[in-house]
Amino acid sequence: MNTYRIAVLVGSIRRESLNRKLADALAKLAPADFSFYDLRIDDLPLYNQDDEEHPVEAVQRLRREIAEADGVLMLAPEYNRSISGAHKNAIDHGSRPYGKNRWAGKPAGIIGLSPSPCGTALAQQHLRNILAVLDMPTMAQPEGFISYYEGLFDEDGNIGPNSRDFLQGWMNRFSAWVRLHGDHE
Amino acid sequence: MNTYRIAVLVGSIRRESLNRKLADALAKLAPADFSFYDLRIDDLPLYNQDDEEHPVEAVQRLRREIAEADGVLMLAPEYNRSISGAHKNAIDHGSRPYGKNRWAGKPAGIIGLSPSPCGTALAQQHLRNILAVLDMPTMAQPEGFISYYEGLFDEDGNIGPNSRDFLQGWMNRFSAWVRLHGDHE
Amino acid sequence: MNTYRIAVLVGSIRRESLNRKLADALAKLAPADFSFYDLRIDDLPLYNQDDEEHPVEAVQRLRREIAEADGVLMLAPEYNRSISGAHKNAIDHGSRPYGKNRWAGKPAGIIGLSPSPCGTALAQQHLRNILAVLDMPTMAQPEGFISYYEGLFDEDGNIGPNSRDFLQGWMNRFSAWVRLHGDHE
Amino acid sequence: MNTYRIAVLVGSIRRESLNRKLADALAKLAPADFSFYDLRIDDLPLYNQDDEEHPVEAVQRLRREIAEADGVLMLAPEYNRSISGAHKNAIDHGSRPYGKNRWAGKPAGIIGLSPSPCGTALAQQHLRNILAVLDMPTMAQPEGFISYYEGLFDEDGNIGPNSRDFLQGWMNRFSAWVRLHGDHE
Repeated sequence: MNTYRIAVLVGSIRRESLNRKLADALAKLAPADFSFYDLRIDDLPLYNQDDEEHPVEAVQRLRREIAEADGVLMLAPEYNRSISGAHKNAIDHGSRPYGKNRWAGKPAGIIGLSPSPCGTALAQQHLRNILAVLDMPTMAQPEGFISYYEGLFDEDGNIGPNSRDFLQGWMNRFSAWVRLHGDHE
Repeated sequence: MNTYRIAVLVGSIRRESLNRKLADALAKLAPADFSFYDLRIDDLPLYNQDDEEHPVEAVQRLRREIAEADGVLMLAPEYNRSISGAHKNAIDHGSRPYGKNRWAGKPAGIIGLSPSPCGTALAQQHLRNILAVLDMPTMAQPEGFISYYEGLFDEDGNIGPNSRDFLQGWMNRFSAWVRLHGDHE
Repeated sequence: MNTYRIAVLVGSIRRESLNRKLADALAKLAPADFSFYDLRIDDLPLYNQDDEEHPVEAVQRLRREIAEADGVLMLAPEYNRSISGAHKNAIDHGSRPYGKNRWAGKPAGIIGLSPSPCGTALAQQHLRNILAVLDMPTMAQPEGFISYYEGLFDEDGNIGPNSRDFLQGWMNRFSAWVRLHGDHE
Repeated sequence: MNTYRIAVLVGSIRRESLNRKLADALAKLAPADFSFYDLRIDDLPLYNQDDEEHPVEAVQRLRREIAEADGVLMLAPEYNRSISGAHKNAIDHGSRPYGKNRWAGKPAGIIGLSPSPCGTALAQQHLRNILAVLDMPTMAQPEGFISYYEGLFDEDGNIGPNSRDFLQGWMNRFSAWVRLHGDHE
């Protein structure tokens, strides 16, 4: 059991983050042999190449935790039509120093939630470009442009009935994607 | 033999296209069980939704040829920091009508050649966004930003010695990518 | 009067194009000294560098009509998360041959309409990148991500009451943008 | 004199940043009535909406300094095919809280330097999308994709002879862009 360990990166660090809630609700839709753990990003310093070889503990922790993952689930809020600074900062820390990119080869899924009718589509476009250079096989469809509405989550934090089928389908594809790349690369 | 048939889309339609030459040279680096065939795009009309249900023969041909592929190799020239109109037009024809996207599920590799020091990197960023919505699993690394130099091709049209290792490595990853997705999806 | 002549490029060539209707309705919101004319794109051949120096009449016409403009209004439908092939093809023709980019210096506005809740936001992101290399000063806000709904147009083809203020504001900014760049560059 | 005050944002925070050197060298090419000052970004916390209404002093300082600018010069290093986390984080702080975007209306120029033959072209594409939503009129050409070479800077930190004309031309266009938008908006 729990053969596949998925690192979850939520790009927003506020307490009541919608994307945090979505991450938790998605995890409950996963197959029994999948487990999820968070990559903490709110205590990371701003990435500075001068400190790259002597990283503080928070950076070392991030790198260890990425390395242990069988896959990565990225929850991308949209700030100013791109991913958040905190999200990008964590990605940069994990990719360095040169030649020690911990993200390489990890199968990834991208999804994001916002009150906008667009979900976080524009941020996700940028994120796809970034994950490509990191050498992360990134699931294509279904696109995860989720627009918040009353009832998206039920009172227990599960996905509500109107979005259950879509997000269960998303998780089914994502778990198949992780298995495919986990077994072979 | 020739278990894997790869459809090749060259985004430039001029006779002496550098990307056409690169496509031909890459094909020679492929494993013995891979074969390549061209998607002709220069005789396609501009995509018009009004004609979608009654396509001319050139469009029908394109759709058939995409459907037969086990993988797609896209050679992307860069025109004005994006892919060419001819390239995008062919992609649009292949994706329609709604519900009959022939590109779906085909593993893809992106590469491009230009005289610019950037290769065709900016066009390829846009192309990655497009292939994601088409549901094409697209190889991440190695990035195919190839800058032309005297000697890239030898007199027989093969890849010259300075780029042989890089492009052989690219083809090895691409063929493994096609096998992985071909066996499982 | 009609001091400012605006070339209109509608990226869809189907007869009942929503973006065509939006272009017509927007023109009615413009100041009295603005006039609008269409850049016809449906009869252009696919751009081919081999024919660049001896263009057919349709290409010559496009280039003349761009050159005469004091500004450009681009209506961008979204096809597969980017602009249409027909739209890109027209842009490429207007930009060539090298050194004779007719788009250079023309102030531009981008807007697009679709049934999607996102409007055509993802296509417009790509289009902004393209207009930058063409050296077109492109209006920033307000973003023109218009989602179609019943009542957007009234029976005379004018903008309906719920979107009148927003689109009048858009046109006011656009006309000020054209005046600013027209007087000075 | 010093009628135009330009805020400089260097997206790298390491001590020997190439983009820092480029910023300093560019400032020396500016007209006599232009002055430049740095936006410090290395002591900013990660943006967190929970703290938005009660920002620490470093954030308040950033917002004040943006508000005072007549134009903004952005030096964009490229990290993983996008702008740095530190760069995006500073942009996000300056744009918030909602309705108090300090960047709005400031004319902007984008340039970046790296050892890559591509300069930082891919990061700059994302940055253009971001500046559009911030409502910053952003100079189109000339593109500032600068690739580092021995001799780019002379021993006094000035631009060396091989790039002097190009970068002087860049600064001439940028200063004209700032004047145009400064006088009129």
